[in-house]
Amino acid sequence: MSTIDVCADLSYEVTAPTSFAFSIIAARTRHQVVTAEQIVVDPDVDVSLVPYGEGTHQLLRFDAAEGTLDVSYRATVSIEGDDADPAELTEVEFSRVPADVLPYLNPSRYCESDKLDRFATGLFGDVDPGHARVRAVSDWVGENVTYEAGVTDGSSGSTDVLLQRAGVCRDFAHVAISLCRALGVPARYVSGYGVGVEPQDFHGFFEAYLGDDWYLFDPTGMAAIHALARIGVGRDAADAPFATFVGGAELRSKTITVELVDDPGAEPEATSTA
Amino acid sequence: MSTIDVCADLSYEVTAPTSFAFSIIAARTRHQVVTAEQIVVDPDVDVSLVPYGEGTHQLLRFDAAEGTLDVSYRATVSIEGDDADPAELTEVEFSRVPADVLPYLNPSRYCESDKLDRFATGLFGDVDPGHARVRAVSDWVGENVTYEAGVTDGSSGSTDVLLQRAGVCRDFAHVAISLCRALGVPARYVSGYGVGVEPQDFHGFFEAYLGDDWYLFDPTGMAAIHALARIGVGRDAADAPFATFVGGAELRSKTITVELVDDPGAEPEATSTA
Amino acid sequence: MSTIDVCADLSYEVTAPTSFAFSIIAARTRHQVVTAEQIVVDPDVDVSLVPYGEGTHQLLRFDAAEGTLDVSYRATVSIEGDDADPAELTEVEFSRVPADVLPYLNPSRYCESDKLDRFATGLFGDVDPGHARVRAVSDWVGENVTYEAGVTDGSSGSTDVLLQRAGVCRDFAHVAISLCRALGVPARYVSGYGVGVEPQDFHGFFEAYLGDDWYLFDPTGMAAIHALARIGVGRDAADAPFATFVGGAELRSKTITVELVDDPGAEPEATSTA
Amino acid sequence: MSTIDVCADLSYEVTAPTSFAFSIIAARTRHQVVTAEQIVVDPDVDVSLVPYGEGTHQLLRFDAAEGTLDVSYRATVSIEGDDADPAELTEVEFSRVPADVLPYLNPSRYCESDKLDRFATGLFGDVDPGHARVRAVSDWVGENVTYEAGVTDGSSGSTDVLLQRAGVCRDFAHVAISLCRALGVPARYVSGYGVGVEPQDFHGFFEAYLGDDWYLFDPTGMAAIHALARIGVGRDAADAPFATFVGGAELRSKTITVELVDDPGAEPEATSTA
Repeated sequence: MSTIDVCADLSYEVTAPTSFAFSIIAARTRHQVVTAEQIVVDPDVDVSLVPYGEGTHQLLRFDAAEGTLDVSYRATVSIEGDDADPAELTEVEFSRVPADVLPYLNPSRYCESDKLDRFATGLFGDVDPGHARVRAVSDWVGENVTYEAGVTDGSSGSTDVLLQRAGVCRDFAHVAISLCRALGVPARYVSGYGVGVEPQDFHGFFEAYLGDDWYLFDPTGMAAIHALARIGVGRDAADAPFATFVGGAELRSKTITVELVDDPGAEPEATSTA
Repeated sequence: MSTIDVCADLSYEVTAPTSFAFSIIAARTRHQVVTAEQIVVDPDVDVSLVPYGEGTHQLLRFDAAEGTLDVSYRATVSIEGDDADPAELTEVEFSRVPADVLPYLNPSRYCESDKLDRFATGLFGDVDPGHARVRAVSDWVGENVTYEAGVTDGSSGSTDVLLQRAGVCRDFAHVAISLCRALGVPARYVSGYGVGVEPQDFHGFFEAYLGDDWYLFDPTGMAAIHALARIGVGRDAADAPFATFVGGAELRSKTITVELVDDPGAEPEATSTA
Repeated sequence: MSTIDVCADLSYEVTAPTSFAFSIIAARTRHQVVTAEQIVVDPDVDVSLVPYGEGTHQLLRFDAAEGTLDVSYRATVSIEGDDADPAELTEVEFSRVPADVLPYLNPSRYCESDKLDRFATGLFGDVDPGHARVRAVSDWVGENVTYEAGVTDGSSGSTDVLLQRAGVCRDFAHVAISLCRALGVPARYVSGYGVGVEPQDFHGFFEAYLGDDWYLFDPTGMAAIHALARIGVGRDAADAPFATFVGGAELRSKTITVELVDDPGAEPEATSTA
Repeated sequence: MSTIDVCADLSYEVTAPTSFAFSIIAARTRHQVVTAEQIVVDPDVDVSLVPYGEGTHQLLRFDAAEGTLDVSYRATVSIEGDDADPAELTEVEFSRVPADVLPYLNPSRYCESDKLDRFATGLFGDVDPGHARVRAVSDWVGENVTYEAGVTDGSSGSTDVLLQRAGVCRDFAHVAISLCRALGVPARYVSGYGVGVEPQDFHGFFEAYLGDDWYLFDPTGMAAIHALARIGVGRDAADAPFATFVGGAELRSKTITVELVDDPGAEPEATSTA
């Protein structure tokens, strides 16, 4: 079991009445329990926490008036992943992919897997299917994409990143997800907090559907998989930005800290926290 | 109330054991009732009907061996849409968009709304918000995109179509959906059967979230909105192709007929069948 | 006749031995005469002026060592365009387009005219061919694209700009050139100095081949056509950036001033300075 | 010295008065001599042969009326390339690239080299510069792109091909050219006839500027470099399509035969025929 302390402090200058939806709340799943949590919004406004996406994801929604807005989130998260022997995690043939998992085989805005059939097959078609193949995809992304801010932006999809060979965590995840889907492996985006992410920020990684569950991978290699606290899941980063708002606001500062306060010791080879 | 007879005959040459998932079954919603239905798969195989997408959509799934495969679907569908006065269908401000509707504001594979902010605002920013504005979007697409097969393909998104100014029904829908989302109006893809579609084929159209429901639009203008029988919904056409399969198969023939056997008389100005 | 004083002051921090090629020298053509000119490079290095592109364009090339580099260019340019009656400037049919003009019908990096056939025909197919049609294209670009820095970047082509509906002078020119080529009108990019460009900077505009010569257009509408001093021409901006270099250098400041010291009075309706 | 017999038979159905420009005539260069040649156009029309591009390229231009049009070209071409020792062919530093070679460093419609900086550097940045590095680029393209018709089309550029990993000869050339330019090596497209091209058709390959000349490479690996007869050169395939026309015409048949009638024996390691 890992225990992770997460902390996110966001400050906005709100220039017009604005409605916000934040994806910063640690998810509640069978494997991830939030043991302590504090949400402070200043000035004090009516907030609501609404289930979103696959249901384990919560949006923090509220309206704010003009002026300075501070949002502070602190949580202690206990994660007891469902560890598995990677050798037993097989790829699931199409006929047995559950209907609610099928959408994660479809191309999405930032994961244009339909364009990467030959690319994925060329690189990974000969690798034995299963957890090891997804691991090979994830490792290939880590080795072939350079972590560098400013090369990509909010409109960059996996095909852009594959050409530019640089990007940030969401770009790494998008490339890996695209390649998995192109290989017939359902894959989805996970937003969260990662211990050791450098520079520390919200993090994005992915999970692949293997055996009969979703298994975690971080293609940036920055965080150990037992050191990933999840916020939300989606088709790609379009479904889980840390903040969405309509109105007028500018982010003035963002400080994230993530600490592993209870280390499980050995890193599991494969784990599900979905 | 409309009554529509739909009929889809598909024939495949299966060249390797193949798993199929068809989206050809008429949806069951509060407003759309299937009064008669026949599904014939030849050779006889075990089929399953699985809820998909928003839950009103059913996948027909089965495995087929090598050889000729014929799939025949016939249904009689009664549609009693929830008609509304367009003047009362307002756009919903972001703070009040239900959480399960929010994903339909996000860009998707074929509806890259994030790239069309200025484009949409330039064309429709000054139009009064509400059903009339979505109607203006839908009409603009019908007037500015030419219906022509072969210009676009399965990788064409709304931005491609906006440049090529030609496409088929799914392309019309994708452009309209993108523009709606860029304007802050949740919009989603609907696959179905449309009376009068020329050449007759499966059809694609869209619905926008207005007031507190989803309202139908067909930017191709080929089918009256009371003459649209729905199959499935999704972010875009990636979520509702009439057939998906893994294995080896080739479509040999596809014959669709759609007839309005009971005409409601007056076309409603706005209707929801979700 | 117009007389224009141009002045460009560039300052670089050179961090490694660097080879530069500048396109900042006023062109010499039948219609544009440079009556006074001063090129100062500090520190003093061996410079060469090399004919480039269509031959009227000169590159200023030299190697610089590490340290501060200042390049200063001043010129007085007399322009006596070949004015024409727009009504007499016809489009040239393909069979009569001279071989050296043919390449300007081809798509280029930033002017992907091959993708805009229907788009161009839809908008301008019914306009009478000739100078008036190119004027209509140029005006349409000015009305439908917003001048705004930061929306586009060095990788943005005309199709990107058509979707984003915003950009800077080079983007305006690229869209107009693409549309002209898609209509069968040879068009090319011209870099230069424009009186009244706001914010004052190097300018980019275009010329179209009509009758038997190249005629100027500025789709941004910022400079009168008799107030445009030319530097270079090319397929698009890739051929005429104000500076190219290999090594290591950072632009520290750039100050451009352009003044009309001798005003011809009436603005010609159509003029060639090629 | 190689001697190559080339033969191209084209048949069109002309449906409206049409102006044609063909790039099918074997080039005349210092190294390529046409010793016999026959151009037959049926019906008999006035044709002109016009210098094009870099001047060694000839366009066959004429106007045709409605009806069947047959164009037949036969030539015997003697090629005595300027062979060189690859080890002595160095890359030319930017400061010494001749002005007329500089444009071949710029990105073009199908060779978007500006997007491939990191990609090219990641793959080839550590390879010793010179002929061997361009050879490595050419070989990499041959190994990583599959020759397959129908995957790409006339709008596919090198970035598309790099993602799809399949294409035809022009696509192979475009990828290699883009990578060379991204590495700072001037590279251009060459159209021609290649012995052994399968299926036999017009061919596209490239040349890179090394030492002080242009050296040939065929990334498809289908033709030996002494078995390539050149037609034209350009920035990319946009500059050298075998046929361009305006009017109305449909290609009914195209038969190309290319035979090596005089084999030089040993394949040169590096040769220039520019």
